[in-house]
Amino acid sequence: MEEHITARIPARVIDRLPLYVRVLSQISGSERQVVTSSELGDRLVIHPAQIRKDLSYFGHFGRQGHGYDARELLQALVWVLGLDRQWRMALVGVGQLGRAILGYQGFVPEGFWIVEAFDLVARRVGRRIGELTVKDARRLEEALSQNPVDVGIVAVPAQETPGVIAQLATCGVEAVLNYSPAAIHAPPGAHVRSMDPVLVLQSMTFLT
Amino acid sequence: MEEHITARIPARVIDRLPLYVRVLSQISGSERQVVTSSELGDRLVIHPAQIRKDLSYFGHFGRQGHGYDARELLQALVWVLGLDRQWRMALVGVGQLGRAILGYQGFVPEGFWIVEAFDLVARRVGRRIGELTVKDARRLEEALSQNPVDVGIVAVPAQETPGVIAQLATCGVEAVLNYSPAAIHAPPGAHVRSMDPVLVLQSMTFLT
Repeated sequence: MEEHITARIPARVIDRLPLYVRVLSQISGSERQVVTSSELGDRLVIHPAQIRKDLSYFGHFGRQGHGYDARELLQALVWVLGLDRQWRMALVGVGQLGRAILGYQGFVPEGFWIVEAFDLVARRVGRRIGELTVKDARRLEEALSQNPVDVGIVAVPAQETPGVIAQLATCGVEAVLNYSPAAIHAPPGAHVRSMDPVLVLQSMTFLT
Repeated sequence: MEEHITARIPARVIDRLPLYVRVLSQISGSERQVVTSSELGDRLVIHPAQIRKDLSYFGHFGRQGHGYDARELLQALVWVLGLDRQWRMALVGVGQLGRAILGYQGFVPEGFWIVEAFDLVARRVGRRIGELTVKDARRLEEALSQNPVDVGIVAVPAQETPGVIAQLATCGVEAVLNYSPAAIHAPPGAHVRSMDPVLVLQSMTFLT
């Protein structure tokens, strides 16, 4: 069933679902139960018609003019996005950026755990960072066959990035979050998303 | 005229424009001149009809069945996005994440320069990082009145973030790139975009 849903929902809609989850979590924690698309739209700066269209992919949650049951909608989106489970992640690259990623406070509360750390640079291998010991990235496949992960985070220099992503794909890691400024073509079967501050800046400078 | 354009173009369209610029730069550097929406769509994994609709906001670049003049289209988008100029940025927060941002190789080639660095932590003030000396964030307004910037980059702990963004807005900084996991309401007149790895991960885990 999930495959069926994936096939017909545009990527732009999927991108917005986590935003809905975040706002609905805030609302359903309070005593209120019903939320309208206008209210969601105000909070997220998304047009209410867009919100109704996005949510219509997931069945008939709202009744015209009555709004949505916030808790019911939240539970459904959490299930659809797989947020009711824990996701295991491997970080490749423990330079300055990689160590900042290891220190990021936002992952664990949302169910994302970094359980392995690797580097290509020999002098970093064997170092202890928090509860992790940095392993040799050339032995990635061996390590991940014993301790599989769902997600790879890549924070290596641009020129190393395609090789590392290919290696992760070989290990069956289907989702990769790329922090390097390299332009990436995802290997078959893998999803690569880049944290690219320049694209964000370029879309903002237009507005100033 | 730019204000007029801003008012009627959906934010989602603006978000895609830098992607078009990136691909067109690659194409127009080669000998080829004409590019079709199908070709752009293949490279960007965006539906060609969406691309034609997006580009129609900016006048009549393509002729039906003939594709776009890559160089002409690139020049127009560069002008619209203001990418033909240099953007001056101030970084607030030079902890581990802030130092990783200072070391990021992707900003300068795209015309984004970090020209000031601030921190709230006393022991970091006065430190030299590359060509910058870290200044006291409590004297942000004084420093930015002498050395104005277009963009603020915020890499302070979540609880400090709203205060720092408000301070930047007071100094007339209209575009802020936020790296903290804090949920932000932009002050009036300011545009705040967050680099939020969790939102990216959540939209990807759905696909795996």
